[in-house]
Amino acid sequence: MKRYRNGEIWDFEHQMPVAAGAGGVILGLDGGTTSTVCICMPILPFSDPFPDPVPVLARAVAGCTNHNSVGEAAARETLEQVMAEALANSGSNRSVVRAVCLAISGVNHPTDQQRILDWLRDIFPSHVRLYVQNDAVAALACGTLGKLHGCVLIAGTGTIAYGFTEDGREARAAGAGPTLGDWGSGYGIAAQALTAVVRANDGRGPDTKLTSSILEELGLSSPDELIGWTYADPSWARIAALVPVVVSCAEAGDEVANKILFDSVQELGLSVKAVVQRLGLCGPGVMFPLSCALLHPSSSEGKDSFPLVMVGGVLEANKRWDIGTEVIKCISKGYPGAVPIRPKVEPAVGAALLAWNFCMKESLKEAFKR
Amino acid sequence: MKRYRNGEIWDFEHQMPVAAGAGGVILGLDGGTTSTVCICMPILPFSDPFPDPVPVLARAVAGCTNHNSVGEAAARETLEQVMAEALANSGSNRSVVRAVCLAISGVNHPTDQQRILDWLRDIFPSHVRLYVQNDAVAALACGTLGKLHGCVLIAGTGTIAYGFTEDGREARAAGAGPTLGDWGSGYGIAAQALTAVVRANDGRGPDTKLTSSILEELGLSSPDELIGWTYADPSWARIAALVPVVVSCAEAGDEVANKILFDSVQELGLSVKAVVQRLGLCGPGVMFPLSCALLHPSSSEGKDSFPLVMVGGVLEANKRWDIGTEVIKCISKGYPGAVPIRPKVEPAVGAALLAWNFCMKESLKEAFKR
Repeated sequence: MKRYRNGEIWDFEHQMPVAAGAGGVILGLDGGTTSTVCICMPILPFSDPFPDPVPVLARAVAGCTNHNSVGEAAARETLEQVMAEALANSGSNRSVVRAVCLAISGVNHPTDQQRILDWLRDIFPSHVRLYVQNDAVAALACGTLGKLHGCVLIAGTGTIAYGFTEDGREARAAGAGPTLGDWGSGYGIAAQALTAVVRANDGRGPDTKLTSSILEELGLSSPDELIGWTYADPSWARIAALVPVVVSCAEAGDEVANKILFDSVQELGLSVKAVVQRLGLCGPGVMFPLSCALLHPSSSEGKDSFPLVMVGGVLEANKRWDIGTEVIKCISKGYPGAVPIRPKVEPAVGAALLAWNFCMKESLKEAFKR
Repeated sequence: MKRYRNGEIWDFEHQMPVAAGAGGVILGLDGGTTSTVCICMPILPFSDPFPDPVPVLARAVAGCTNHNSVGEAAARETLEQVMAEALANSGSNRSVVRAVCLAISGVNHPTDQQRILDWLRDIFPSHVRLYVQNDAVAALACGTLGKLHGCVLIAGTGTIAYGFTEDGREARAAGAGPTLGDWGSGYGIAAQALTAVVRANDGRGPDTKLTSSILEELGLSSPDELIGWTYADPSWARIAALVPVVVSCAEAGDEVANKILFDSVQELGLSVKAVVQRLGLCGPGVMFPLSCALLHPSSSEGKDSFPLVMVGGVLEANKRWDIGTEVIKCISKGYPGAVPIRPKVEPAVGAALLAWNFCMKESLKEAFKR
């Protein structure tokens, strides 16, 4: 990405005429701990369903914008740059922007939201509609094409389940980091595999094919060297990168690797179930006497349908051992109404569609007021 | 501890006459990640058993000397200072030192040992006997009064099991840090308790008294704040400090807290069993046909006695819920010959006794050669 000197970010606006998006554009941003994506989408005439594929005028990519990782100032600068770049690439400028939706990891409290809204307001004129959300919300919206209803399960380096009811209630499960029990994540799977190697080596656990496979992958000669390898760089992504080795070992029939993957399926399923249950996404169930409910705990759940959006590297493996498919099976047993969706568009597009939906609702409200 | 300028560390030797230890002294050092202790012990006339209490001329304390944490140069300077201080406090100097045993955490490979031996050799004249060991070895020796035989289980912030046979074979289990499965440690117990609070809060786990107790201990108002608390400072000791809260909740009958403690007992017991089995510390067992051994796996183990030294904050809790006592019960089931020892002297004394025993053996060898 081009580096800007202070004040230069929006200079391009004086240098080019507005070529595209004269009818108005929406910016959608997906800001993660690894990278940030901004897309620029034209205002769509009211259409149901949305055009497929969703039209995207331009796309720009930048680095981390999680304020917990890089600090407030750096996060803001990167966000501003990536928005300017997407607008410049689309041949438009801020004068045609109608709405912006920033979906960023690390936004957990209303105070985080308000702080970001405040500085966004400095950049865009007052008629531009601004929305700030947690990045999990954009991941849900990229599966539901902008509708905030259902549950999203993200499982990459970390994991989180996030859900919304149609009347706006929300709930989350997991997403607290590996110290606090995100065991089904890519980091969780890989850390358990490394642990299995150490335990096989010191006699606390059974032998496993993971030993030779992981040592070969890392270029180490003995399990003792794993201790130094782990201490050398505690980054979660570096550890999570071992997930494909675990999947290969499980496919080759290794029992330890298979158990790790089955456990991760249970954990990921549990996160979704916790969200679905708290929000009642499956609807009210037939009421059994308490004794029956204890014998058949799932028999008191409803069968209403709801979208279940599946996002992230751990769920996208398209191999014989498919974690995503197993998670869906596990959830469908308790909630037959779950409708699994593997999104065809990226979360930044989800953020833009979210902004579009918010705008439509607000326009309708205003129309009724008149 | 007094700070020395470069070259000044041994200046005291010119300023004081040798008052004590004229018959010779031994230095024992226990160097950990939190602190380092050096004791100065007079050469004892050959005595069996050792005098009780073990005579200690002087004691000095310094900070971290794990070279992985503070670097080689700082570790060396601190070690040199703490030895000088112990000698100065005892009114003796390097001329009367007969042997030094450094037991330091982070010493895992022969190359670590050799590097430290090399610079120790620069400080002491060639007739002084020098020994460098992992700190777990001093912990064993403080229970066995210097004899390298049996198994030590350390469970503080971290955990490790380390064992020696009388003919010098050694084995270890765990001690690889929390990412690599040291689940029975103080950190492991507390991290599981924090996880239980998060899971109770988001619906993945049962309600637990740990929620109110931990939030009160940390001065937080909601489980959501635990995420920020954990990210703010990932130091293991800070998390492990919550162990007493978990013990209190278990004593008050909380099922989740009880399960965490029972699991930690199993984990700690497993580490000891892995070491005992690999070293055959329990001796050869009665041989059963394979089918019997599979039905009664412990029936093929021997019943030889061996010392089992128990060290560290997690094992020293002297409450109704006594983790150390439960671990001993768990191990004694499989290995009735395990003789539990809770050391009366500190590991630095163990290091000094170790040096004394090494010296005795070498002197005997030399006597036979003549």
